[in-house]
Amino acid sequence: MAIENLQDALLEELRDVLSAEKQTLKSLKQLAKNASNEQLQAAFEEHMEQTEGQIQRLEKAFEALDRKPRAKHCAAMEGLIAESKEILEEEASPDVLDAMLIAAAQKVEHYEIATYGALCAWAKSLGLTEIAELLHETLEEEKATDEKLNELAAEINQQALVAAQAE
Amino acid sequence: MAIENLQDALLEELRDVLSAEKQTLKSLKQLAKNASNEQLQAAFEEHMEQTEGQIQRLEKAFEALDRKPRAKHCAAMEGLIAESKEILEEEASPDVLDAMLIAAAQKVEHYEIATYGALCAWAKSLGLTEIAELLHETLEEEKATDEKLNELAAEINQQALVAAQAE
Repeated sequence: MAIENLQDALLEELRDVLSAEKQTLKSLKQLAKNASNEQLQAAFEEHMEQTEGQIQRLEKAFEALDRKPRAKHCAAMEGLIAESKEILEEEASPDVLDAMLIAAAQKVEHYEIATYGALCAWAKSLGLTEIAELLHETLEEEKATDEKLNELAAEINQQALVAAQAE
Repeated sequence: MAIENLQDALLEELRDVLSAEKQTLKSLKQLAKNASNEQLQAAFEEHMEQTEGQIQRLEKAFEALDRKPRAKHCAAMEGLIAESKEILEEEASPDVLDAMLIAAAQKVEHYEIATYGALCAWAKSLGLTEIAELLHETLEEEKATDEKLNELAAEINQQALVAAQAE
């Protein structure tokens, strides 16, 4: 497809992030299953539900553009998730594994923050108010999730230190 | 390598981000070569210089840990850069291509913001003050670059719109 204007770019990027969100959904299941800290497990599970809502918002954005919600494989998210999988294969102690899983999850969040940030700016420039609002809502959710993971990380890093000192 | 404690995780993540920075350096050359907007070209070139300094800081961090600066291939950055390459293969008009290149660059920035954020928190938890300071300096640089790209994006999105309307 030739990308002639900003609306074509928006559509292309919506397809990319739809793929990214679908990949994230699968990955979050794995993260929740492998996290030891209960709060972290709960945070991953909560974000799974949020991600389902975010996919629905993307579908509404496609609808507003009168296009089918067709995903285009997101290579970046594939790489990010490959990194999470590598972590799960490491022989790490539970607290340290949790600390590494949070870092991996925050990289995914930041991918989405950057993507929705660009999408939102493009939708606003194009005067596509409904789409801009949908994307903005998701952007704010991603930022809040990142903030929540920051707080959990502080706690889990501390646990990882205490566990190491006790050995 | 078994990851027994947070310091092992820190070392593993330093190796990941060293690979990420080296990949970014190559990618930025391509982005600068293909950007049409002069300010954007200059921003990419300036960030190339910054990235070289960031690699030097990473090397100092390895030195402080008395370890060799050995990179471990970062699959996530490979995916992020694959996305930039895909964009360069699109048949896009110059302004729209610039808008897409900025978005791709901001995804790279956000990968680094998330990574240095986690690294910084781990170094602080471990009481590794010198390393924490080195990483914090880079973290602030990455955030400033992202902010600068945000400002440039607003301008370039506008140009892309005007160009499309003039056709």
